Amino acid sequence: MPASPAATIRRRLTKPDGRSVWLYAAEPIPEGIEAPAPRGGPVVATPELRWHPLRAEWVDYAANRQERTFLPPAGYDPLAPTEPGGEPTELPAGPWEVAVFENRFPSLAPGAPEPPGTLVPTRPGRGACEVVVYTQAAKGGLGDLELSRVEMLIDVWADRTRELGARPEIEYVMPFENRGVEVGATLQHPHGQIYAYPFVPPIPARELEEERRHRARSGRGLLETHLEAELADGRRILFDEEGVVAFVPVFARYPYEVWVAPRAPVPGLPDVDAPLRAAFARALRAVVRGYDALRGRPFPYVMVFHQAPTDGAAHPEAHLHVEFYPPYRTTERLKYLAGTEIGAGMFTNDALPEAKAAELQAALSAAGELR
Amino acid sequence: MPASPAATIRRRLTKPDGRSVWLYAAEPIPEGIEAPAPRGGPVVATPELRWHPLRAEWVDYAANRQERTFLPPAGYDPLAPTEPGGEPTELPAGPWEVAVFENRFPSLAPGAPEPPGTLVPTRPGRGACEVVVYTQAAKGGLGDLELSRVEMLIDVWADRTRELGARPEIEYVMPFENRGVEVGATLQHPHGQIYAYPFVPPIPARELEEERRHRARSGRGLLETHLEAELADGRRILFDEEGVVAFVPVFARYPYEVWVAPRAPVPGLPDVDAPLRAAFARALRAVVRGYDALRGRPFPYVMVFHQAPTDGAAHPEAHLHVEFYPPYRTTERLKYLAGTEIGAGMFTNDALPEAKAAELQAALSAAGELR
Repeated sequence: MPASPAATIRRRLTKPDGRSVWLYAAEPIPEGIEAPAPRGGPVVATPELRWHPLRAEWVDYAANRQERTFLPPAGYDPLAPTEPGGEPTELPAGPWEVAVFENRFPSLAPGAPEPPGTLVPTRPGRGACEVVVYTQAAKGGLGDLELSRVEMLIDVWADRTRELGARPEIEYVMPFENRGVEVGATLQHPHGQIYAYPFVPPIPARELEEERRHRARSGRGLLETHLEAELADGRRILFDEEGVVAFVPVFARYPYEVWVAPRAPVPGLPDVDAPLRAAFARALRAVVRGYDALRGRPFPYVMVFHQAPTDGAAHPEAHLHVEFYPPYRTTERLKYLAGTEIGAGMFTNDALPEAKAAELQAALSAAGELR
Repeated sequence: MPASPAATIRRRLTKPDGRSVWLYAAEPIPEGIEAPAPRGGPVVATPELRWHPLRAEWVDYAANRQERTFLPPAGYDPLAPTEPGGEPTELPAGPWEVAVFENRFPSLAPGAPEPPGTLVPTRPGRGACEVVVYTQAAKGGLGDLELSRVEMLIDVWADRTRELGARPEIEYVMPFENRGVEVGATLQHPHGQIYAYPFVPPIPARELEEERRHRARSGRGLLETHLEAELADGRRILFDEEGVVAFVPVFARYPYEVWVAPRAPVPGLPDVDAPLRAAFARALRAVVRGYDALRGRPFPYVMVFHQAPTDGAAHPEAHLHVEFYPPYRTTERLKYLAGTEIGAGMFTNDALPEAKAAELQAALSAAGELR
């Protein structure tokens, strides 16, 4: 039995430039902490959305993101706590364990103004972009955190989902992590992000649509049904404990793709209870430890949470899960998205999921994490 | 007036390993040329397709592609003509101008066997993957070819579309080019590829669906209507001559995205007549010359043709066009596809299409190609 997890306590601060910071810890965070902001002054966010008529999707333009004029000193880590008398970072010193702040260069922002009209429909890029800092430590990743910290992260993702999802303009909240220079991450400090969208974005929308159809046909969940089949087959399972499964899907589009999901459908992060949170934390950490064991050094990936929309409708079809997309096709060779993926939408995978699952099972085993 | 283009003449050969080669030239190609094949023997292609139930799309597995055991000598160019007594390449010496051959490591193959069943629907990865060699010269790109050669390439793409599309199992033919190491191209020799799919792939299918809807609503073509609006606005136009337009779409998802299309809907490459072919060739070459002028060196991109399916149905909604997707967000900084693009399907673009169009207009102007 896992130890009963501590409650996650939160304190909200406001930066000099008006942005919010949320500090999280197991113990109450004292009052009087002042939130810093990097030099360079506030950035005016004017993201706008334009409609792509041939793909029937919104495209986001955040021209303000290119105004990154502040040249930081060498070794500057904007996600580290600000040192006394030091260059101000995004976060204060203090006994916080996890911190969230509003991105200074957001692709979606609460106050985005009405854009000028153009040839296609437009709308303000309203929403939110937040940064989730996993630890005060400057290096490492999800695989290096204490389990209690990963559980706290799940609380934080749930807290942000609830709060952002309650805003009337926000219809979908997606926590994610871009890890490694190979996927464009510019900061090494362990962190993820949250995008809160004013619509249900195309990929979750497509998944939900298929889940709805399956449920209407069979009365059961699509991912739930598939998980049962994966477990019965067994060849691609990396982790199966206390109701949480990690596996290489039989339909993986990326060679090292891994999904993590509760066996029983849970709509979203706010619905995760303490036992599920404990198992989910162990599964996430085991997957990342397995990735890192592939080469004995941090393995890059894009990790995304898919969950129920916050659009006010009921979503009995939604089944919370995580999708990991590492950009490699072997441990040393990148998988590029090119003609057939970008131009046609058909992914080609040089390896069968069974072979990659065996490779990952060996890596998890080497890391002492195979379950 | 452009000179009347010469006819494109073709000769088909068979390699020792059974694969086909098609040689194209303006003058008849003599008989008696023997097609070579690289050392290493024939590769057995067993691509299979699996159904992704949550995205409702086929994923392709071509495990045979990893069996690339032949280590070529330094400087070996498999797309160059084989020299007398030299290491055999994919192509013979001779007076050909453009050559096409069946890919030795195909993701889709005519004889793909029935795969073993698994948890999701499967089917053989039947189709074709061909390599299109633009020239016997080992370096350069579309921007360095004579216009008559680009016109011949359009004939070749049309010829392959007709022939592949006539196979009963093939429903969509997509010529494309992956240019540059940034998009995974491993060979510098100027070349593109053709994938012939046993279904209409998701991205063209989505475009065709939106085009069908627009046509049903308005009686006119969606891209045709949009082109008129782009021309009336004018700010993002790079080329407009003899009925062919190149432009940065107002809804561009990639900073340097460019589309090239005839003003009047033409369903596919086989429907391109001589005047349209001449204008299309000039537009394609002008765009690539503009790209290359951005930095004074080859600019990488993924270029894809979207055209009418070959599925036996009528496609009055189809409007042939080319989409260019360069992987850069500034001339020196890559655009990465990460959390929001890969996990949500919402593209974020740091630059407004108007700004990038101005940059490209200046580059085309510097290259003497602005029209």
